[in-house]
Amino acid sequence: METIDAAGIAAMAQRYRANFINSLSGYKSANLVGTCNEQQHTNLAIISSVIHIGANPPLMGMIMRPHTVTRDTLGNIKQTGLFTINALPVSHYINGHQTSARYAPEISEFEEAGFTPLWEKDFAAPFVAESPLRIALKLEDILSIQANNTELVIGRIQLVQVDPGVITEDGTLNIATLDLAAITGLDTYHRAQPMAKMAYAKPDNPPTVIEFFNADQ
Amino acid sequence: METIDAAGIAAMAQRYRANFINSLSGYKSANLVGTCNEQQHTNLAIISSVIHIGANPPLMGMIMRPHTVTRDTLGNIKQTGLFTINALPVSHYINGHQTSARYAPEISEFEEAGFTPLWEKDFAAPFVAESPLRIALKLEDILSIQANNTELVIGRIQLVQVDPGVITEDGTLNIATLDLAAITGLDTYHRAQPMAKMAYAKPDNPPTVIEFFNADQ
Repeated sequence: METIDAAGIAAMAQRYRANFINSLSGYKSANLVGTCNEQQHTNLAIISSVIHIGANPPLMGMIMRPHTVTRDTLGNIKQTGLFTINALPVSHYINGHQTSARYAPEISEFEEAGFTPLWEKDFAAPFVAESPLRIALKLEDILSIQANNTELVIGRIQLVQVDPGVITEDGTLNIATLDLAAITGLDTYHRAQPMAKMAYAKPDNPPTVIEFFNADQ
Repeated sequence: METIDAAGIAAMAQRYRANFINSLSGYKSANLVGTCNEQQHTNLAIISSVIHIGANPPLMGMIMRPHTVTRDTLGNIKQTGLFTINALPVSHYINGHQTSARYAPEISEFEEAGFTPLWEKDFAAPFVAESPLRIALKLEDILSIQANNTELVIGRIQLVQVDPGVITEDGTLNIATLDLAAITGLDTYHRAQPMAKMAYAKPDNPPTVIEFFNADQ
């Protein structure tokens, strides 16, 4: 194995290190976060740090960097208390990546990157019409990560819109049918294929596959 | 689109809701977190909430639930201040899933699920020999998420071991060559294929593909 220690990481050039460390978390979901300010001026940002926080209450989180390109997103969330998470489909990964450019605050990434804002009654943040899985969230909490001056933004799920027929019998979404993009590092986009759905694991049972999805498995 | 509002989520049965909400974050990296207590009794847990926190200092995080099956992992991290994150290869996803069973504290998931603990000099937490990407971390901080009594555990990267030839010229890992597993929901395992590496996005440039990885793109 190739081994890199803390001194080796510290000695890396800044961009090289950013590429390296960003790669270590493997596959990440590609999501577009939609926000607006109090004048309903829209903003859209691709985020690869969305995580599940908990199911009850229904919470999702993401890491925001106050001093980088996502500062407008964070500012809007603090103003309105609202944001949307829109899963990025493979069909639009090139558009999605363009939202990471550092546009001036008065420019909307929706227009520049080729996405359509969608407004729902009683929710003052824009969804992405091109997304097959859209989530409306209300700001629940912001935790400061003192180690590097970033913030964990936590939202409570208000509304979910998803293509029909995707929710399976046990509540799980059949993500594969949505053909969503995954990201590795800062710039590489992937598609995925399901291999298997596993049964709930128990100490006294061997691991059990409920369903294989590919004939070659 | 199928629409589910907050009342609809609240009305779901507990396990159905867990499956549904866990699905909303899309593709998640599958990682095995290795720990031990002060007597070097080992523990291994599959975690799908590992995220990049920052590159400088090099930080990764994960969400832990103090009262669930990962309570031993969290207890060990608090005891020793150390843990490892080991990317789960597709070849071992069935073994990896088995570590989510609720074994008694005195049982090691390494043995039960068929993984080999690997010890490195001067680091008192076990790696997973079967993983092609292993990361040693020292506990940096634990943030309490009051909204649902979970914790964001943040570690500082001490050491990275990766298969030779995987680090590319710009520091990015060629994750696809490691054939890592991705998870959706609580129990569905996927493999992924790279589509494209994109250039750094700029407002005045159209989005630019540096490299396509599949002939059919």
